[in-house]
This record gives sequence, C-alpha cells and structure tokens, in this order.
Amino acid sequence: MGGVIDGFPAGFRINFDYIHSEIEKRKPGTSGLVSGRKEEDLPEFLSGISQEGITLGTPIGFIIRNSDCKSKDYEDLAEKFRPNHADFTYYSRFGIREHRGGGRASARETVNWVIAGALASQWLESKNIYIYSLLSAVGKINFKDHLVRPLISNPNREEDFKLSEDIHKKYEEEILKYKNSGNSIGGIVTCLVKGLEPGIGEPVFRKLHAALAQSMMGINGAKAFEYGSGFNSPEISGVDSADLFIRNSDGHIATSTNYSGGIQGGISNGMPIFFSVYFKPTPTVMRDFTSVDLTGEDVIIKNKGRHDPCIAVRAVPVVKAMTALTIADFLI
Amino acid sequence: MGGVIDGFPAGFRINFDYIHSEIEKRKPGTSGLVSGRKEEDLPEFLSGISQEGITLGTPIGFIIRNSDCKSKDYEDLAEKFRPNHADFTYYSRFGIREHRGGGRASARETVNWVIAGALASQWLESKNIYIYSLLSAVGKINFKDHLVRPLISNPNREEDFKLSEDIHKKYEEEILKYKNSGNSIGGIVTCLVKGLEPGIGEPVFRKLHAALAQSMMGINGAKAFEYGSGFNSPEISGVDSADLFIRNSDGHIATSTNYSGGIQGGISNGMPIFFSVYFKPTPTVMRDFTSVDLTGEDVIIKNKGRHDPCIAVRAVPVVKAMTALTIADFLI
Amino acid sequence: MGGVIDGFPAGFRINFDYIHSEIEKRKPGTSGLVSGRKEEDLPEFLSGISQEGITLGTPIGFIIRNSDCKSKDYEDLAEKFRPNHADFTYYSRFGIREHRGGGRASARETVNWVIAGALASQWLESKNIYIYSLLSAVGKINFKDHLVRPLISNPNREEDFKLSEDIHKKYEEEILKYKNSGNSIGGIVTCLVKGLEPGIGEPVFRKLHAALAQSMMGINGAKAFEYGSGFNSPEISGVDSADLFIRNSDGHIATSTNYSGGIQGGISNGMPIFFSVYFKPTPTVMRDFTSVDLTGEDVIIKNKGRHDPCIAVRAVPVVKAMTALTIADFLI
Amino acid sequence: MGGVIDGFPAGFRINFDYIHSEIEKRKPGTSGLVSGRKEEDLPEFLSGISQEGITLGTPIGFIIRNSDCKSKDYEDLAEKFRPNHADFTYYSRFGIREHRGGGRASARETVNWVIAGALASQWLESKNIYIYSLLSAVGKINFKDHLVRPLISNPNREEDFKLSEDIHKKYEEEILKYKNSGNSIGGIVTCLVKGLEPGIGEPVFRKLHAALAQSMMGINGAKAFEYGSGFNSPEISGVDSADLFIRNSDGHIATSTNYSGGIQGGISNGMPIFFSVYFKPTPTVMRDFTSVDLTGEDVIIKNKGRHDPCIAVRAVPVVKAMTALTIADFLI
Repeated sequence: MGGVIDGFPAGFRINFDYIHSEIEKRKPGTSGLVSGRKEEDLPEFLSGISQEGITLGTPIGFIIRNSDCKSKDYEDLAEKFRPNHADFTYYSRFGIREHRGGGRASARETVNWVIAGALASQWLESKNIYIYSLLSAVGKINFKDHLVRPLISNPNREEDFKLSEDIHKKYEEEILKYKNSGNSIGGIVTCLVKGLEPGIGEPVFRKLHAALAQSMMGINGAKAFEYGSGFNSPEISGVDSADLFIRNSDGHIATSTNYSGGIQGGISNGMPIFFSVYFKPTPTVMRDFTSVDLTGEDVIIKNKGRHDPCIAVRAVPVVKAMTALTIADFLI
Repeated sequence: MGGVIDGFPAGFRINFDYIHSEIEKRKPGTSGLVSGRKEEDLPEFLSGISQEGITLGTPIGFIIRNSDCKSKDYEDLAEKFRPNHADFTYYSRFGIREHRGGGRASARETVNWVIAGALASQWLESKNIYIYSLLSAVGKINFKDHLVRPLISNPNREEDFKLSEDIHKKYEEEILKYKNSGNSIGGIVTCLVKGLEPGIGEPVFRKLHAALAQSMMGINGAKAFEYGSGFNSPEISGVDSADLFIRNSDGHIATSTNYSGGIQGGISNGMPIFFSVYFKPTPTVMRDFTSVDLTGEDVIIKNKGRHDPCIAVRAVPVVKAMTALTIADFLI
Repeated sequence: MGGVIDGFPAGFRINFDYIHSEIEKRKPGTSGLVSGRKEEDLPEFLSGISQEGITLGTPIGFIIRNSDCKSKDYEDLAEKFRPNHADFTYYSRFGIREHRGGGRASARETVNWVIAGALASQWLESKNIYIYSLLSAVGKINFKDHLVRPLISNPNREEDFKLSEDIHKKYEEEILKYKNSGNSIGGIVTCLVKGLEPGIGEPVFRKLHAALAQSMMGINGAKAFEYGSGFNSPEISGVDSADLFIRNSDGHIATSTNYSGGIQGGISNGMPIFFSVYFKPTPTVMRDFTSVDLTGEDVIIKNKGRHDPCIAVRAVPVVKAMTALTIADFLI
Repeated sequence: MGGVIDGFPAGFRINFDYIHSEIEKRKPGTSGLVSGRKEEDLPEFLSGISQEGITLGTPIGFIIRNSDCKSKDYEDLAEKFRPNHADFTYYSRFGIREHRGGGRASARETVNWVIAGALASQWLESKNIYIYSLLSAVGKINFKDHLVRPLISNPNREEDFKLSEDIHKKYEEEILKYKNSGNSIGGIVTCLVKGLEPGIGEPVFRKLHAALAQSMMGINGAKAFEYGSGFNSPEISGVDSADLFIRNSDGHIATSTNYSGGIQGGISNGMPIFFSVYFKPTPTVMRDFTSVDLTGEDVIIKNKGRHDPCIAVRAVPVVKAMTALTIADFLI
C-alpha cells in the first residue's frame, strides 16, 4: 500500500509523531473496540521530504509494507461473492477477482488517507484551522444530538465538543455485545472544523459542503452525510432556523445561531463547520451465509473466525483526514 | 441564464417536449405548492443540435431570457446580509455584492440543470435506464419510509415507487399552512434509478454514491444525503442487513434484500439504486429580520411580500436532472 | 457562437474597448491581408459582469450572433470530404456531418478565444504582465530570426520587438500574390511575454512551455511550436547556449543570454518569454479538387469563389489571447 | 523514484521483458552514446498486478530504488545556480533548494515514464497500434527529412521508417566529438504511430496533436515540436499541400499524401501519425561557469568530471512512452 501526495506546500517541517498518532487511532487491536487483526502501518517516505524533514514542494510518495496480510485467509473466497462486500461489483466492473484481502475495497486502504490527512492537518493547524472528529453513536447508543445541539444554538462554546469517559465505556459495551455474538454494528462520526475564515468554497459546482459530502461518502461503509441542521432541517421552519447576522464582540460578523453549519451558499461563513457521517456495520460477521459464485451456482460463505465489530471506530481518524485533505485542497 | 453541455453523444434525436415537461415541474406558480413568482423558462438552443433536432457531438449551448426578474425588487438589499442566504459568504468570497436576485445562489439557476438533465435523462432512457424522483416528505408529513422500506425488503416490486393523490393533498395542506403564516418549511426528495447495469462507478475516488452525494448536496438548500439503508444503517446489525446474493429467475445475479441501495464498494450491483436528499426551508420568509450591513452596522431586512414556502417541491425535477447528469457522466 | 469564462477574479473593471480592438485585429475584411468574408463579432455579455462593468467572480457568459453565415454556401458539401479540412475526421469521430461552415473546426470560432483572452490580457496588464504577438513570417518572407535573435542575445532590449511598415508591406504583397492566383500560404506568429515573475509553472506535468505548446497547437492551422532557441537548439552546443546567471543592475538575478526563452525546468525565470507558432496555409483554395463522399464514391469539390489566403494573419490576436488565458490560469 | 498508473484496463497480461527492454534503451552506460553514470532501474511493482502478472484494474504502483545516486556529488551545488538547469526556477517556485541530483528536474525521472509507457505500448499493440521513435538528428548530422519526406509523399510505405547502421555510426562519432571536448549537443527524435483508427481526438480543447505537443514538450530538454509538414508548412502553398481523399485498394478512405501528419482538425484520419521533438544539449558540461548563489553573490560552478553529451539519445524511448500514454488516454 502507499500513496502520492501532490501539491503539498514547500518548506513545511513535518511532525512525524503527529502522523504516527493519527495512524494509531485507526489501528486495529489497540483496544477492545476494534478487530483483532494486527497490522503495522509504518509509512516509509520515498520522496518530497528532505533529510531534515522539510517538504520540498514536489510529490510526497510513501509506502507501507503490510506485515500481516495472510493471503491464504482468503483462499476459499476466490470465486464466491460475500454479501454487502464489493466482490460482485468489482467483478462486474473489472472482470477479474482480486480475492486477497478485498483489495482496494478493504478499509485497510484508508491508512493511506490517514497519513496524507495527517500532513494536511498539520499544515492547516499552522494556519489556525483545527479539525476534530468524534464517535458520536454506536448502534442505538447515540450522543450525536448531545454534540450537535450546542453547536447550533450556542456556536461560540465550541470547546464543549467532547465526550466523557463514561460515554466511551457505553460505546465499548455496545460493541462488545455485538462482537461476542459474532455480529457487527454501525455508528456515526461527527466532525467539527474551527478557524476556517469566511469565503472558502465554490458557489456552484464545488460547494464546500458538496466537496465534503463526496469525500465523506468515499470512506468505506459511509451511508449518509448531513451538515448543520442536517436531516432534521425539513422539520424546522424557515423562521425558526434563521441564523441572524450579528456583530461579534471582536467586531467580526457572526451569526447568533448556526443551523447553517458554518456554510451558506456553498461557502464558509466563518462560523464553526460541523457535519456527521453515518456508517453501516461491517459486512464481515461470524456467520455462514448463502451466496452464489462466479458461475451463479449456490455456495456457502463460511465465517472466518474474526471480524471487525464496528468499522465506525476506525473511521474516526479517517473522517478527520479526509476533511483536512478536502479543506486544504480549497486553500492551496 | 444559460449553460453549455459538453460531451453529449452525437446522432441522438432530442425530444424537446420532454425538456419542456421537466421544466414545467419546477416552474413556480403552476400549483399552490410553490411561490407566486412567474418565470418563463424557455431555453433557446444556440449550438450542438442540427436543424433537424439531432445532436452533433459538439457542445450544446443554450440561454434562457428571464422575463420576470425585476431588479428593483432587490434594490434595498444592496448592502444588507439576509439570514441563511449566501449574501455574506459571497461577499466574503468575491468582495463584491451582486444583490439582484441572489445571482448564482438563487435556486432559479437550477432550471439550467433541469434542461441539461432532461437531455441526459432522454439518453439514459434510450439505454433503458429510468430515473424517478418524488417528494417524500414536507415538514413532519413524512412518507419516506413508506417509499424506501419496500425498496429494501422487496426490491423487485419497484413499481410501488409512487405516491397517492391523498398524500399530495396532505403535502399541499402543510405547505399552505406555512405559506399563509408567511413562513416556510423543508422537505425530502427520494430518487430511484432503475436499469443501471452492474459495474458502474469507481472503486475509490469517484464511488458512485459519493458522486451522487456531491451532485445532490450541490442543489440549493440540500442539507443531508443518504442512500440505501442510509441514516438508519448505524442501528441495523451486520447480520440483519446482509443482502444475500441469489440467482434470479432470469439467471442474473441479484440480492434478496437491498440495504446496499444498489451500490456496493462504490459500484452499481444491478439492483435498484435509491437515495434521499433533505432540504431546508427557504430562508426568504414574510418576516422582518435584524441583520448587519457591509460595514457591520445593525439593519432591518424587510419582508418582500412574497416567498417560496417549500423549495423541496421545486427540487424534485432538479434531483432527477442531477442524477441523470451524474450517471451519464459515468457512462459516456 | 459564444463562451463561458470561469474563474475570472471579482471586482475587476472591464475595458470593453480593449476587447473590441482585439476582435478587430482578427476580423476578416479589414485589410487586404485577409479574406473578403464579413462578420460582425460583437459579443453580448450575459452574466458575470455588473451593469457598471465590474466582474462579479461568477462565470462570464457571452454570445455572438453571426450575421453573415450563409448556410447555402456550404450546401453542396453536405456529403463530400474537403482536403485538409476536418470533414472526414469529424465524420469519423461523431458519425454525423455538420456541413454548415465547418462548425467547430472553423477558424471563426477563435473569436470566442480572442474575447476571453482580451479579458485575461487586461487582468495580466493590471499585474504588469504584457503580451505581444507579431506576424513574423508569410511564406518565405521570414523575419522570425530578426525578431528572435535579439531576444536571445540581448534580452534586456525587448523594446526592439516590433516590425516596420516596410515588412508589413512585403507580407501584404506576398499574400496578394497567393490570393490573386486563388492559392493560399502559411505563416509564423511570434509571441513575447514581458513581466512574468520567476517561479510560475509546474515542474513535471504542467510545465509552463508544455501548457503553452498545448494552447498554441490548439489554434486552427498550427503545425509547429518552438520556444527559446527552439528548432535551432539541437545544433547549438551546451557550452555555446549556457545562459549565465548574473545579478542585474537592480539587484535581481537575471541571465546574460536567453536561449532558455525565459523558462527553465518548466518554470519561468523572470526573463522575457518568447515562442513561435507555425501555421499552414488555409486548405480552402480557389481550385476544384478530387475527393470522395460519405459512401467512398469519387466526387469533385468545387471552389467556392472566395477564400482566406493566409490564416496566420488572423491567428496573431488568437496567439496573444491563448497565451493570456494560459498564463492567467497559472496565476489565478 | 516511482509512480502510480491509474486507469489501466483489467485482465491484461503484462510482458515484463518488454518493460525491461524499453528501460534498457534509455539506460546510460550501455553504449558510447550516453553518459558514464550507472543506474539500475529495475522497477518493483507494488499493486495493481496479480501474482500471475495480470492487471487488476486498480492503480499500478511501482518504485525504483536508485543504487548509484551519490549525494555528495552534488554537495557543493547546494547554494549555487547552474546555467540552464532548473536550480533557480525551482528555488523561485518552491523557496527551497533540493540540490541532490536535480530532483524532479533530472532527466533520470523519465525512467518512470518509460515504465508506464511500456505498459501502455503493450496494450496499444494488442489493439494493433504501433509506435516507433528514432533519433533523427544529432547536432548538424540530420536525417529528419530523410525519415519524414517519404511519410508525407508516400504514406503507405511506412516500413521505410528506419535508419541504417551507418547513420548510427555517424551519430556516435558526432556525440563523441562533443563528449571528448567536454561539451554537449542536442538532437531530434522523430516518432511514427501506425494503426490508429480515424476519429480519435477532441475537436477543440484536446486536439490530438495539442495533447501530443504538451506531452512531448514535457520531456526534459524539449524545445520544439512539429507534426506533419510541421515547421516547413508556412512555406508550402495550400494547393501544393492538399492531401486528396482517395479510396484505398481495401475500400478504406485514405489520403494520397500526408502533409496533415495523420491528424485533421485535431482528430486522427487513419493515416500514419508522425511528429518530431527537438532537444537542446544537456546543460551539464565539462566547463567551469560563472554564476550567482542564493544571495546573489558571484560564484564559480565547477565541472563535475562527467556529463551526458547528448540527452536526445536517452529521450528516444521517452518519446515513445509519452506517445503511448497520451494515445492510450484517448482510447481508455
């Protein structure tokens, strides 16, 4: 695995610890929350960064040599289509099975995005733009409104964007429940962007929230995206959701509420930007399934003895990374 | 207003009535559902189509001369920022006010998309791909589950994708309630794509649903997007949402349920594709609002005496159009 | 005809006279040098510019209603392939004949580029970047070296980039010679860009000179492109063509000679940029030609009684326009 | 070094020997014609190809570990600008010196293009499209007309596109003359594409020859590009350069001559396509040069004791590779 980051500004000193800590967040096996599969995802940078760790303005290439990808694990899947996986669609698209590890459809590939995003996040932080992503729900254990409501009604108190240890414990219990029964469950990741100046985004074909939607829906397992008042907005009247313009104590123009989610007409208005991404459960579960094979014959897909009970957990740093890359793309 | 459609295949006979009937769907004033403002949106085609109505393979340019855009309606807004409009963000982005009619941020511009989409829809229909969009909710009058549940559990009965006259009446009553009180309300548009073969979409950076999400979120007033099991998917377990592969009576590979919404790993699987787009209420309402002007001074925004009580109504043909354009872009 | 200019900066006051004078340069019929066909190429701007002539940051659309395009002139060509025209290749590409006026292959379309380029040139001039294009050869009457040699050996005396009235008279005589015998002849257009700062261009896939080459070769009739020492560079040794770096009297880094043509490694070095574009003769001449028709049958193409004896003349403002658009694209 | 090839069709069996033999052509040290520097350019493929050597439709990543890049060779250049190199322009663009090996400006990077091109060429050959590139001139030893004239006047005898051993010997002598005096010399590479069907190319903004021009001018050291009658075309009259359409013995439409170089109106016409690329001498020569450093102070650039006397030699496979990539991009 690996990637090439093009367009990163020259002369920026890379903090490699920052990259490693973002990778750590999505690494399976570091907590009870995620799958037992071990991977060592240490990137080797091949170009674009000087020996002193300064970016050169040229493409930054990196590779990750996957130490724990046992191809034989996937041997008996060579000709079978797993439910809700991309097996059948990839076969339809490319006319060839790449049965080892799910290939590009595997969520493991997102480590590349986390690495690229960690570079983008560092650069954004040097411009005082900060991105935070949190697991806001696991199954029915849902704290999304708890996080989002204050961002709408009281947008200046954005420091409240955090979750207690108790809530994390609840998530963990819920996930273990599904894990122990060989099942899986979905979740929601909510993201907050602070410090983006007004005026970022394109008015029609690359609206800021449309670009974010595309990036977020590109993350493995994402099924829905909302920003600002989001999927509640059809039920709130125009009068009740008007974000009135005011002049802030520091003289800047702000809004009294933030139903808009920091974006109006596709362009940032300087208020906090927030959105949520909804993830389905991983389709790999501890069950045998009926299916068909390449020839359309009935087959049984045997369970593999291990699985990731909640991919939303691993998506948390990926949402941050893709947000950073999307916003940096508008600014560079 | 106008547009240029590039890449349309040569030698296709255009049905101009089809275009006009799509335009008609979004035209304000044709029913009690939408704003009283009248516009004549008849496109004049300038290039790319022969005198016989056959496409030439070259860019298709068209213009619409807007007969009812009274600039003076907007005169006193020249220096004021309306709430939830793009006034402030456009000013931040471009450093200039274009106060007449909201310019590009105006939902009126979407008539161009409907025209381009009507060309794409015709072409898709010649390939047996059909797109249907319906108003699935107005405020709390919500029939989205009514439409979507059968698509998930019984995907072969897609002919059930329709709404009764009764439901339309309920929508109308709800909209009138808001209209009469000078307020506005949002809604949901649900879209179904039938007949797309398996294998369409890109595996990583242009996943089919990510491309659709970007297109849909680019429509004025869109706040959320979901496909397949969508916003509910975090709550349904992996076992319960497994779309098992089966062989259809006609020998094709299909799935028994359709939580996937016809897309797996970013690529179509040949099942019906469906998704919903959530629209906020129009921000123009019959109220005076406090705001600030270009210099940050407090001002009052006076109500204009007319407004669109539910922009989701006009978005119905726009959702169809943008879906057609997005899918055609993958096929051409 | 018409076009849409996207990405033009907001808040710029357009000089419409500038646009008209650029259009005038390419207008046939204004001198003995070009074809007798009359066209009125007055653009009507439809969007993107305020009533006060200030750009709004939104797409600038314009159309030109061609008053003198008699379709019947082309009637008998409906099914015949003219030599060196795009008749056959367009038919191969699109499967349909668009026999009226040559359609997009017609050099008349370049008036759109001149209009867009005139906007870009104005904006560049506001940044002290100036573009000059000159007719440097007609057939064997060749003053290219006369123009280019001083730019290489003495790059600071760029004010010498001009041609005398005498030279223009010689061009005119040469063109008339071909015109009177119903024949046509090619020419060379040489272009100079002054004032571009160092550091513009991409190091690999959008080298500044590669982007210019693509733009120039896209002009109708262009057959060759060279920059700096160009076609002669294979014959000059590495020692003899070394542009030594010096410090200028004003403290800036410059080069003593300019074999590099102002671009090194694909990026501007602050020295004058210059290049030449070689145009073939127009293929419409006063002769009958043998050819074949759609079915492969032998036919005669009759001469049309009028022709453009030297398309290079009309390409002079087009070269300037496409240069302006290409450079502006790097700067905006 | 390395690269990622996106969009390569799935299910194609790669011939790795083909890749190696293309790499071999540009390898320095394999003949007297090129520089004495040794590099081992064996690519390691990391993704996109199955263990059986079949493409998977997913991006093909590869890296090359350079075994002979002694950074110390470049140590004393850290702050000096070499003449005609990209040192100064890269510094202007990126604000940082990457003094080791010239970085991306180094012609060594083109080995990546040769590898990607070797994949594209194989695929094109499976469609009966063949690309040949030849060194057509070294300094004043010029056989370009010898190669090109028959392609224009007698386009069916394309098998004549070759050069004798004698001519190669003359090239070698010329290069050695410059090498022995510590100097360098340029050259011309001429390329022929056979078997491309009519109808490939875009009519306006991606004309086939404009895309080729951009690709060719992107090769290190390229200073000029011509196709068909090229830079002689201004001197040949419209009557004399008319490529008359005829019906071939096999019933296909062809032209009797090929001044058009196989492209009319930006689109292939089915005739052989040919063009030439003009290369300057390498700027690294065995001389000391005066120059300036980062601070503008006068410095001396010392010669490094070895150099590449004719980069045009190494460009021969690069021209083929970039041609293959450009054409494949239109077909896939």
